[in-house]
Amino acid sequence: MKKLIPLALVILISVSFSCQKETEKTTTSEVVTEVKNDIERIEPPHWWTGFNNTKVQLLVKHANISEAIPSINYAGVSIEKVHKADSPNYLFLDLNISESAKAGQFNIHFKFNEEKELVQTYEVKGRVKEASDYQGFDSTDAIYLITPDRFANGDTSNDIKEGLKEKTINRKDDYARHGGDLRGIIQHLDYIEDMGFTQIWSCPLLTNDMERASYHGYAMTDFYQVDPRYGSLEEYQELATKAKEKGIGIIMDQVANHCGSAHWWMQDLPFKDWVNQQESFENNKPLNNSNHRRTSNQDLYASKRDKKEMAEGWFVPTMPDLNQRNPFMANYIIQNSIWWVETLNLSGIRQDTYPYPDKNFMANWAGAIMSEYPNFSIVGEEWSTNPLLIAYWQEGHDNKDGYDSNLRSTMDFAMQKNTVDALNEDEKWDTGLVKIYEGLANDFAYASPKDIMVFPDNHDMSRIFTQLKGDVPNTKMALSYLLTLPRIPQLYYGTEILMNDFEKPGDHGFIRTDFPGGWQDDAVNAFSGEGLTDAQKDMQLFLKKVLNYRKSSDAIHNGKTIHFAPFMGTYFLFRAIEGETVVLIINKNNEPISLDLKRFEEVGLHGKTLKNIITNETFVWEDEIILNERGSMLLSTKL
Amino acid sequence: MKKLIPLALVILISVSFSCQKETEKTTTSEVVTEVKNDIERIEPPHWWTGFNNTKVQLLVKHANISEAIPSINYAGVSIEKVHKADSPNYLFLDLNISESAKAGQFNIHFKFNEEKELVQTYEVKGRVKEASDYQGFDSTDAIYLITPDRFANGDTSNDIKEGLKEKTINRKDDYARHGGDLRGIIQHLDYIEDMGFTQIWSCPLLTNDMERASYHGYAMTDFYQVDPRYGSLEEYQELATKAKEKGIGIIMDQVANHCGSAHWWMQDLPFKDWVNQQESFENNKPLNNSNHRRTSNQDLYASKRDKKEMAEGWFVPTMPDLNQRNPFMANYIIQNSIWWVETLNLSGIRQDTYPYPDKNFMANWAGAIMSEYPNFSIVGEEWSTNPLLIAYWQEGHDNKDGYDSNLRSTMDFAMQKNTVDALNEDEKWDTGLVKIYEGLANDFAYASPKDIMVFPDNHDMSRIFTQLKGDVPNTKMALSYLLTLPRIPQLYYGTEILMNDFEKPGDHGFIRTDFPGGWQDDAVNAFSGEGLTDAQKDMQLFLKKVLNYRKSSDAIHNGKTIHFAPFMGTYFLFRAIEGETVVLIINKNNEPISLDLKRFEEVGLHGKTLKNIITNETFVWEDEIILNERGSMLLSTKL
Repeated sequence: MKKLIPLALVILISVSFSCQKETEKTTTSEVVTEVKNDIERIEPPHWWTGFNNTKVQLLVKHANISEAIPSINYAGVSIEKVHKADSPNYLFLDLNISESAKAGQFNIHFKFNEEKELVQTYEVKGRVKEASDYQGFDSTDAIYLITPDRFANGDTSNDIKEGLKEKTINRKDDYARHGGDLRGIIQHLDYIEDMGFTQIWSCPLLTNDMERASYHGYAMTDFYQVDPRYGSLEEYQELATKAKEKGIGIIMDQVANHCGSAHWWMQDLPFKDWVNQQESFENNKPLNNSNHRRTSNQDLYASKRDKKEMAEGWFVPTMPDLNQRNPFMANYIIQNSIWWVETLNLSGIRQDTYPYPDKNFMANWAGAIMSEYPNFSIVGEEWSTNPLLIAYWQEGHDNKDGYDSNLRSTMDFAMQKNTVDALNEDEKWDTGLVKIYEGLANDFAYASPKDIMVFPDNHDMSRIFTQLKGDVPNTKMALSYLLTLPRIPQLYYGTEILMNDFEKPGDHGFIRTDFPGGWQDDAVNAFSGEGLTDAQKDMQLFLKKVLNYRKSSDAIHNGKTIHFAPFMGTYFLFRAIEGETVVLIINKNNEPISLDLKRFEEVGLHGKTLKNIITNETFVWEDEIILNERGSMLLSTKL
Repeated sequence: MKKLIPLALVILISVSFSCQKETEKTTTSEVVTEVKNDIERIEPPHWWTGFNNTKVQLLVKHANISEAIPSINYAGVSIEKVHKADSPNYLFLDLNISESAKAGQFNIHFKFNEEKELVQTYEVKGRVKEASDYQGFDSTDAIYLITPDRFANGDTSNDIKEGLKEKTINRKDDYARHGGDLRGIIQHLDYIEDMGFTQIWSCPLLTNDMERASYHGYAMTDFYQVDPRYGSLEEYQELATKAKEKGIGIIMDQVANHCGSAHWWMQDLPFKDWVNQQESFENNKPLNNSNHRRTSNQDLYASKRDKKEMAEGWFVPTMPDLNQRNPFMANYIIQNSIWWVETLNLSGIRQDTYPYPDKNFMANWAGAIMSEYPNFSIVGEEWSTNPLLIAYWQEGHDNKDGYDSNLRSTMDFAMQKNTVDALNEDEKWDTGLVKIYEGLANDFAYASPKDIMVFPDNHDMSRIFTQLKGDVPNTKMALSYLLTLPRIPQLYYGTEILMNDFEKPGDHGFIRTDFPGGWQDDAVNAFSGEGLTDAQKDMQLFLKKVLNYRKSSDAIHNGKTIHFAPFMGTYFLFRAIEGETVVLIINKNNEPISLDLKRFEEVGLHGKTLKNIITNETFVWEDEIILNERGSMLLSTKL
């Protein structure tokens, strides 16, 4: 029976189609009786029916596969074109999966000659969710950024994996693996939910089978495999499912620019231009790093030399620079991204090192994803404090060169710096709080400010508590400011317990310190609160209150923004919507200060009672407000 | 006979017009037999025929003039509307000067009653030059900025003027008048021409009859009068004429934002809203200074309060803030500007404190001028290092709020700072020369980079030699860089002889030090070179050579720009056009350094001979270049 049912269905379909479309040739399909896996590697490992783009290009890797002639006999699926590569061990097959194609398995036959044929079973799955239901992250969210090796070790059995190059874990070495994993994140979803986060962005979880220091995840050696030290594909899916049940989305960290030098294809590259500087690489000649002069992407005057060094230089010597101008590579990356969105039911992608790949490719890449998932979100990392660049990369910005990135979200490194400067600097005409006042004014130039991601720090920079010199009130001011802005806020794990890098400022391995309590027998447990200092508990509670208020605050998510120029060491920011006004007061004065509220008349709060979101105290907004201590005050008209 | 001829002409004209336009009522004109000046003040003091805008609005000031009925009997000129003001001592007359109106004098009759009539003779002049022949400054120019009180005292007889409030000159007091004047500039036009400048921007030359410290010129007390201490209107015209003969244009410094508190109208303001905060002013209540938060012009979130404080606050307490939203004030300012363009045959206007007046008015103001003089140039001063603001104010930039300034040129305070930082900072990944490399990359965001004005310093900031800590090679690098950019360069008088403010850094009065040789018996004479130090002579010659090369350099004026990322403490900028390539090399190394020229292959100079613009030495561009000393090298393929 199992054999007959699909056949019957296929016949029905092909009949119905022969009426509509006479060119459709397939009237019968070969039935898969047994899964065959003759081929060394085929990617994507499976695909789906029902995408807007009915094409998929399969990378087939097998010894001398170029000598074979591939064929498929499956209704609605056809090989449109077969491409040989420069290496004889690759074929690229352009499949068309027509609207009529049904989900199912089929065989791909690779006929070498009369005697030799290899068979690979391939599957097109049915999509389980409407394309428009992939809802991306946005300003209603708060994102928790995790370095998965350092958050929680939920499964010690996967700490060391046979066959991988790094053979040890060592929590005392900041650049070694520490054992954190997917199970650890799954186990602490409650904590993340309780804190008030609604999205998790984990640094990459795909295999980085490098000799050393690949705990960060950005040197991928297999774009379709979950790193076994983090767990399995099924565990990644379990994380996504369980998170979704709590209203938490999963943002995947992807890298289109480079792979790890131990990537499987580096031993036998399909094309002569699969990676940049391939000739030098293959002949053991010296390789050039990128000049990292990212402005050459926009610069009208950049020399061809600088552009080439930027685009084709390797990010670091252990990360081969992918050549996205090779159309097969381009397809590979786009399909890989879509594969993960569909497989993990993602709510977003964070794309690493955004200005490094070919920028036209990046626009196509983002465009291809957004065309399949119109409500999805992608945020791209351009590390620049220059608002012109933040603006340039966001879709909808009117760039003089006509470039439209298709990228919904960019990263506000400018505001990160402004916030730190605002708090560290003394109050003068052009230093201190004016930095956030004038920095926020730059929003006039952005296509969509509230779709920009803002953050106090991330995995690549000193912890905010360190940047703010260990000053708790300043840290609270920074965090409450960023969480009240018309932005998508992202916090790095451990910010809530004042994690810092005073000991080795700016050291990447050290910044990504283990979250206490993530490992059995940790003396301190930040999940339970056990062993935390009072200051840590206080900050954790502070952030929990702000985040949980923010979670349902329409004013913060979508409200109008009004702010006032810094005055006497204070700064007032209002977010207002029908029925809710949120007031953020930043006060840098150590001594009590009284402020006349007449200045804020236009906000219309006179006579209204507001609640302090942290202390729950109420305050009637009348003639004056007395600020007793340095710090932030977050008030709301929602009582 | 004198009486009859005009009458005959008028009749002929009116006849010819009665055929074309039956509504034209004037068939006869009153003949002016004697110039009458019964009226205290009428502004503009005269007007012209032949503007696109045929309307002019006369401000008439006289005791109880509001009681009078004005009339004109002159062919082609009619009073379209009479406006009473809030003060009884003003009338505003809307005149229409039709295309048919002939240049000439006519009387305006102000009839109070049967017994009383005052008569004022008014003149409409013929225009002497085609509107399109008013050629503005552009990137082919180099501008010499002068503080006229401090450049040269060509006429000691006007040093102290009877009837003005400041009664002394005192060259030892940096904030007193020093006696510089128009005659002094006229006398040294040869010097300015020899140096290679093609435009003179003098700080304002209009009357500043203030009690003290008005030598700077920005506190005007009469918008239609040349300050008698600088000379007469005729001398201003003489300057313009003689400069033009040498190919030098005159840029007038105008102020639409404020006047001096001793302005004549402050005693009897025509309207209740002629200046901002007028009620407080008239009732001797405290006045608010502007909050100077200029970003409120763009800021989407700026409070109404901040916007109001910015727009309506006074610049300083001695400068009443004009209310350009009063339409009579708006007309007054626009007409005043046009009056000066026409009277002085200007090549440009530099508009002070651009973001302070009402910004919609400023767009109308610039638009009105550009509509009369399509090839004219206006540069607006927004003191900001934020490229978003430099871009915002320039015409043609696609601002999200739809604002189009009609302003051809903005000021590149960003590049000024970048240049200083680039030279003062040590060479690191993100400091030093990268500041000019990445700063120039921002040009991608400007509507027209080459129409932006760039400068090493100006009258409001520390001298460039001081900013660069007295380092001559750094100063040469800064100057040659700014003079080679796709920009309109402006230098402040005295830069060529290393004038500085080390003694009182940043002190405005001191920055504007007397130019040596501008006063009789000066021990040093920078015009003749007498008494200059070797370093001063060297810098003067250096600038003279660069400026004179630049004068006819199509590559610098209009060439393509290519630059290369800083490398080993050096930076290369190329400007190239058919037949001419200019190379600027900035070298921060104290020790000799050899550079491989292969890096610059794409510029196509291999095998070509280039001339060093300063030393006249030639250099063949082949494999390498050896830079022996820190400094700039300017090479050209034009031998």
